[in-house]
Amino acid sequence: MHLKHISLNQPQPSHNITSSSSYPISTSIFPTPFPKSLFHHAHTLQPIYNELYARLSDNESWLYDAVIKPLLPVDPFARILWEIQLLVKSKRGGGYGSDTSMGLFRSDYMLHVPRDYNEEVEVEVGNSLLDESENAQQGLLQLKQVEFNTIACAGGCHANKVVDMHRYLTRTGVYDDSLSRANGEERKSPITLSSLPTNENIKGLADSLATAHDIYGPVRSDLATKTGVLFVVQPNNFNVADELPIEYALWDRESPVPTYRVEWGDDVLERTCLSGNRELLFYPHLQGEGSKPVEISVVYLRAGLEVHEYDAVGIACRVRLEQSRAIKCPSVLGHVLTFKKVQQALMAPGVLERFLDSEEKVLAIRDTFVGMYPMDGDSEEGRFARGLATDPETAWRYILKPSLEGGGHNVYGEDIPGFLLGMGSESEWGRYVLMERIRPPVVGNVLMSRMGVEESDVVSELGVFGFCIWKKGEILRNETVGWSLKTKFADVDEMSVVKGFGCFDTPLLV
Amino acid sequence: MHLKHISLNQPQPSHNITSSSSYPISTSIFPTPFPKSLFHHAHTLQPIYNELYARLSDNESWLYDAVIKPLLPVDPFARILWEIQLLVKSKRGGGYGSDTSMGLFRSDYMLHVPRDYNEEVEVEVGNSLLDESENAQQGLLQLKQVEFNTIACAGGCHANKVVDMHRYLTRTGVYDDSLSRANGEERKSPITLSSLPTNENIKGLADSLATAHDIYGPVRSDLATKTGVLFVVQPNNFNVADELPIEYALWDRESPVPTYRVEWGDDVLERTCLSGNRELLFYPHLQGEGSKPVEISVVYLRAGLEVHEYDAVGIACRVRLEQSRAIKCPSVLGHVLTFKKVQQALMAPGVLERFLDSEEKVLAIRDTFVGMYPMDGDSEEGRFARGLATDPETAWRYILKPSLEGGGHNVYGEDIPGFLLGMGSESEWGRYVLMERIRPPVVGNVLMSRMGVEESDVVSELGVFGFCIWKKGEILRNETVGWSLKTKFADVDEMSVVKGFGCFDTPLLV
Repeated sequence: MHLKHISLNQPQPSHNITSSSSYPISTSIFPTPFPKSLFHHAHTLQPIYNELYARLSDNESWLYDAVIKPLLPVDPFARILWEIQLLVKSKRGGGYGSDTSMGLFRSDYMLHVPRDYNEEVEVEVGNSLLDESENAQQGLLQLKQVEFNTIACAGGCHANKVVDMHRYLTRTGVYDDSLSRANGEERKSPITLSSLPTNENIKGLADSLATAHDIYGPVRSDLATKTGVLFVVQPNNFNVADELPIEYALWDRESPVPTYRVEWGDDVLERTCLSGNRELLFYPHLQGEGSKPVEISVVYLRAGLEVHEYDAVGIACRVRLEQSRAIKCPSVLGHVLTFKKVQQALMAPGVLERFLDSEEKVLAIRDTFVGMYPMDGDSEEGRFARGLATDPETAWRYILKPSLEGGGHNVYGEDIPGFLLGMGSESEWGRYVLMERIRPPVVGNVLMSRMGVEESDVVSELGVFGFCIWKKGEILRNETVGWSLKTKFADVDEMSVVKGFGCFDTPLLV
Repeated sequence: MHLKHISLNQPQPSHNITSSSSYPISTSIFPTPFPKSLFHHAHTLQPIYNELYARLSDNESWLYDAVIKPLLPVDPFARILWEIQLLVKSKRGGGYGSDTSMGLFRSDYMLHVPRDYNEEVEVEVGNSLLDESENAQQGLLQLKQVEFNTIACAGGCHANKVVDMHRYLTRTGVYDDSLSRANGEERKSPITLSSLPTNENIKGLADSLATAHDIYGPVRSDLATKTGVLFVVQPNNFNVADELPIEYALWDRESPVPTYRVEWGDDVLERTCLSGNRELLFYPHLQGEGSKPVEISVVYLRAGLEVHEYDAVGIACRVRLEQSRAIKCPSVLGHVLTFKKVQQALMAPGVLERFLDSEEKVLAIRDTFVGMYPMDGDSEEGRFARGLATDPETAWRYILKPSLEGGGHNVYGEDIPGFLLGMGSESEWGRYVLMERIRPPVVGNVLMSRMGVEESDVVSELGVFGFCIWKKGEILRNETVGWSLKTKFADVDEMSVVKGFGCFDTPLLV
């Protein structure tokens, strides 16, 4: 009953203006223990990751060789995006519309307990691990990257509100006593306000877009009288509560940043046009005939991230946005960096060294990698991985992930050999990468979701939001701007809050 | 789709923790024109009204003679409250528990167009009236009080959020052009941010309770370790979204004020007790055995305002609260001041002069009065009013209001004669007061409620929130802390947002 703190999702499009059926976002009842040092370490990693991905997106030939080329024969989405890229770049497409690029990234990590699979006895995990002294944790636990998202990174607003809720509950004293047990055990680390970090994602994401808006500069088109940010959103998005707070924060600034929403597809084509110098002009909804258009400074994509959105209209929509002078968040070159294939390509010898300017940065990033292999049939590495993936004796240590996806559609452990054999043609296997499973420590908590309230063993995933804006190789701003913690039942493989598996959470820093 | 700005109400108690059916509060689509000078005048009136009502509540004998005595034979609610008052005051009851009293009041006004009923031609009203110059308005329009509420004054949080919404919509430019028409006419006064006053009700109400909490001072009971504010609320309150933001604001202060909710009735009896020196001790929900109680500094009643709440348990509940040392918002003596009978009693010659210390204050208050008469059969005034009310030729200019109620159950104009005759016994008539109808100017707007979206003639009601705290006749703080504007279809008599007739609104100051 804490309405302020509830992020409401709409289960289905509502066409009734006077009421709206919605459900609260899933949350953990208790904050979940997380090592303080690794929480802060993830924050310091983010500017390095931002820099790395900014440099990667500036290097079209590396991108093509390492990511696109291997995917073109097997993956339609990579093909569509690359065709858009080539079209925009071509003489017919007019070339790139903007020399400035930006990213609102989210790097996801899990805690990892390293173990030796040759030994019979596993390292003990569980509550006790997190209750050990900080030194012990640092020795035992590592931060491993699950994925790096470069488009439509979600969850920022939900995370902000759920952290506010846990901090509110802490203030009220409900965690003070015997209720603060999980799995029947007394908590060793008390839940206090000082152990729960504050979360300012909404401000951080809005500030990032406002910074990019400022960098775009004043109106250039004679037709427009002002500049503004454009959120391109999915029609009937049930997750709108994760977008609107950013829009409101932009309007609510001391110098308000005009911000508008437009739906991916026809709505973009009908309400925007390119002026003579490729300014993106937008005609807001609910404005009368004869009103002036807004010149768009920043296009913030919260749509266009799924292959099914790229029918002819979707392609035309993306092409227009890319052709424009507006700063795209992200551009197509930034978008393709979200493919799993990138994570795997970064593991190749010398790649990090090529794109990062210090040994220290290289080591920090490499420390977050787990083993990751291509699944092609040509390379030696690919053939090795195929061996691991088809042998039940080894497959259980891995996850098979589509090269493209930003989550979901993964195949876990024991299911991998059967899944691969069921595909018919081995040539399809190249669409996947094989990733070593992260083995997170398991702790107890109570999760509240549409499935009810349940006490269980849980595991968590930390996301860190980064903002980067760069122009012809020069990085103009590079910051860590927020974070989210998601927690799920330990026996569920997938981490998806929108599918009901994950719950937003707050780290209890220990 | 502006979730931040929506105040959600729950249509019925929801026992499903994972979802909640709710509907947005009704709002006007456009801000409604309102004279700037009268908007500000209503704010300056509030401290005078606060002072007046503080003095009235300190004068038990006047209250008894003017309000309670005439109501005792005809009204059970007055009888119950007075019995509670006498019990608490008696030796058996232990006397008053606190020498400090507070009020969170709301004074409601409508604009009034005076007219001479003897003339055939009425003064022209409508849009044009509000578009006239300020001087003209001041001459033509008056601010007349509808009622003065002293208990559980609602709507503050909803008003805050709806004003935020209208200001947000104004920033986005949706009011800039042809859509800003009402009833097909072009608006003469453009909707700009500077013509829409900000609203900080949530902060104002929370600050008031925090001030009273500070005035209560440190813990006195040996059993408790801290003091806190207690909201006493109605069980399964569908209007909880109007209460929680105040609670959150108290917790969110730089020095958080511990704030708890308890339900009227059994919940109060089970979770509170009076310690030796009549400190009110509260045992919060969700706290384990053996935890210390909180000593309640301020009891904020958002319940106990309706007669049906006073069964044996309800009476015991109110008695315990009144007996305690906590500052009551309001006490029983403050509560009975909400009766309509008080407004009518204030019209008697010399009353305002007795309770206010300057001629200027007396005139300012008297200017907001409309004609109001008792309906008893004994006094000359009462017999005169009975004549007006039973004659269809005159009855249409009046409203018949129950002496007690804080809204609703009114009988309007032409319906009065039939209603009175249908009551059977004339002795029942004394439960009512007869009030001259306020004739507000009518303007055009579009209202959005559960009944849909409808363009119509509308009329508005301005509420002003006041905070006052006083100790043995000395006023410690006296402030105007907020306001609300409610607008309804001009052809609907009743102004009740919760019943679906009224919409929260923002004044377009002209």
